[in-house]
Amino acid sequence: MEPSRVENELVMLPGPVTVSPRILRALSKPIINHRGEEFAALYRECVELLKYVFQTRNDVFVLSGSGTCAMEAAVGNVLGIGQGGKAITIVNGKFGERLKDIADRYGVAVPVEFEWGLPIDLEAVKSVLEEEEDVRTVTMVHNETSVGMLNPAREIGKLARKHDALFILDCITSIGGIDVPVDKIGVDIAIVGSQKCLGMPPGLSAVSVSERAWEVIEENGKKVPYYMDLKAYRESFEKGQTPYTPALPLFFALREALEIIKEEGLENRIKRHKSMAEAVRAAVLSLGLKLFPKLNEFSEYSNTVTAVCMPNGITDAQLRGDMKRLGIVIAGGQERLKGKIFRIATMGNISARDVLTVIQALEIVLAKYNVIEGVGAGVEAARKALGL
Amino acid sequence: MEPSRVENELVMLPGPVTVSPRILRALSKPIINHRGEEFAALYRECVELLKYVFQTRNDVFVLSGSGTCAMEAAVGNVLGIGQGGKAITIVNGKFGERLKDIADRYGVAVPVEFEWGLPIDLEAVKSVLEEEEDVRTVTMVHNETSVGMLNPAREIGKLARKHDALFILDCITSIGGIDVPVDKIGVDIAIVGSQKCLGMPPGLSAVSVSERAWEVIEENGKKVPYYMDLKAYRESFEKGQTPYTPALPLFFALREALEIIKEEGLENRIKRHKSMAEAVRAAVLSLGLKLFPKLNEFSEYSNTVTAVCMPNGITDAQLRGDMKRLGIVIAGGQERLKGKIFRIATMGNISARDVLTVIQALEIVLAKYNVIEGVGAGVEAARKALGL
Repeated sequence: MEPSRVENELVMLPGPVTVSPRILRALSKPIINHRGEEFAALYRECVELLKYVFQTRNDVFVLSGSGTCAMEAAVGNVLGIGQGGKAITIVNGKFGERLKDIADRYGVAVPVEFEWGLPIDLEAVKSVLEEEEDVRTVTMVHNETSVGMLNPAREIGKLARKHDALFILDCITSIGGIDVPVDKIGVDIAIVGSQKCLGMPPGLSAVSVSERAWEVIEENGKKVPYYMDLKAYRESFEKGQTPYTPALPLFFALREALEIIKEEGLENRIKRHKSMAEAVRAAVLSLGLKLFPKLNEFSEYSNTVTAVCMPNGITDAQLRGDMKRLGIVIAGGQERLKGKIFRIATMGNISARDVLTVIQALEIVLAKYNVIEGVGAGVEAARKALGL
Repeated sequence: MEPSRVENELVMLPGPVTVSPRILRALSKPIINHRGEEFAALYRECVELLKYVFQTRNDVFVLSGSGTCAMEAAVGNVLGIGQGGKAITIVNGKFGERLKDIADRYGVAVPVEFEWGLPIDLEAVKSVLEEEEDVRTVTMVHNETSVGMLNPAREIGKLARKHDALFILDCITSIGGIDVPVDKIGVDIAIVGSQKCLGMPPGLSAVSVSERAWEVIEENGKKVPYYMDLKAYRESFEKGQTPYTPALPLFFALREALEIIKEEGLENRIKRHKSMAEAVRAAVLSLGLKLFPKLNEFSEYSNTVTAVCMPNGITDAQLRGDMKRLGIVIAGGQERLKGKIFRIATMGNISARDVLTVIQALEIVLAKYNVIEGVGAGVEAARKALGL
């Protein structure tokens, strides 16, 4: 049996994630006019629910593009095209690097870089902020899935504000699963992707924009990317519209996904994510495996994806190949971490059952390659962590 | 009865269009890993079929964004960010203006403008091409839906090539419904949107890129928009991947939509679109209405959308409101044409039955407001044009 052929895979990737049938069905609704009242009501409802999930009173817009599209919207609108805008870009993984690359295209990126998987040293960020002049924004990835680490949003937010710079926080894989009180932290532009903790299919992203951010963005006038022009999004939203054609089926799905979040309650959802990630960590540790990220007092293990060092005695291809044959898709390491780590995501609407399933399968595969002796310890540790 | 509530509207907009249930169902397939073999096979299949529809051997890529995203990909990659690239932008409607606006953001737009709905004067384009130096590209909208006109692709393509400029042709609303032999015409970058003649929901677009275009694009290095970086698309396609997360459900739908086109046959599909548009034109003329565009020997009425002057005795709100109450959505005029025209699109997988339905409803509404005396003439004219 090839599970993919029967459409029965458990996708435990740090996006895309397994999507609830309730959300999948919403995709198939017939087309409506995206310039009509029905769409306006749909879009406004999505935005209201997104504000709840973002914990913000700032403006929120939905982009018909992936998280990367929203990253470019944030950086491109703040730095402008050819306006010489400067960004301090904090990097300790693949997605931090992406923000740096985008900033380099539009203006000037001043990177503060750490080895992938090492924690962010606040002193290093502080000293760069003190040295550099005319910094428009600090960019950081909140939940760096490439290394399984949660970066210090509150602390970096404070530093940015102290130096009168905007704070762009990539929350693509945290919002909806990890506590991100956007207004309390003082995030000027926060970003989320649809296919992560919101539990939706990929294709949409959303951004929140603070008053402080608008002031900077307005100065760039029309010298901002066109498809991601946030001022155009703001203007169109007055009529409940998007400036360009929205990916309509995904908006139907987004409403359904956000209603599910509202029904569960954001606080419960965050607790559930924490508990699922704790279960995975407890399980892999009980099997003698090592977690990949190195923490300091300001960083934490991610509660939406667990990055584990690849143990001796098994290759990435063996581990993930055998898992896939059991109908479970987990992630490997990206770029320089290829073969060195594997990653189990616990995002979105998955359940304790799914977590136990993936741990059980992991044990079976590790036992097959004699990395562990027999199965059971992992599930037992996960069970306890889940309070079952 | 409110048709929208029972999901039973006939959407005759120039995008989005009514989507076949066969395509809608494909949207609901469960999530797969977009970095796996199954997605690679899906994407490659889509690209092969798109090459058939584009009639090209050039590279073709799918973007997870609307047609506007693809317009920006074309212009942004060719002009570059802050590289001073110059584009001659031909404008005779709303979407031509959009290409001009995008060119202005990245480099220098030299517009050749005509009143919306007037045909493109080749001599005017020629003289600007002769005057201007270092022109990287000429941009034009092939099928300008805002005015219901087909612009002269072959002639402008020849002029661009003669002056060693690239030819960017927005075929968002023509490819798949109107004959666009990309390679024969010599289009360097052609663009299509998913929610037009392909008969799909909105959310995807595709671009073809010629060898000549690659040469110019490569010179811009990394100074191109990030999410739309065509070089990144080319590199990822070697592994059957997209550089950033694809809007997966829409790729499932795209494959289905393209298979439907293959089954019908491109030639038959183009004939069907011609016949449907001819039927609409014949019908509205038989009712004493006037077509909006003014043609010259190089331009044609669009075969995917018919723009009609708003007759005396009825307002836009009355006409489209009453049509909507009958369960049919047609388009009004945009911006400066608001209230002055209405537009009936005949794009995608709609049938003669749909065309007859919309004409019948149009007659009923016009008769109600005494714009015409009684019904029947329109359907009779449409019937004949359809050869029924």
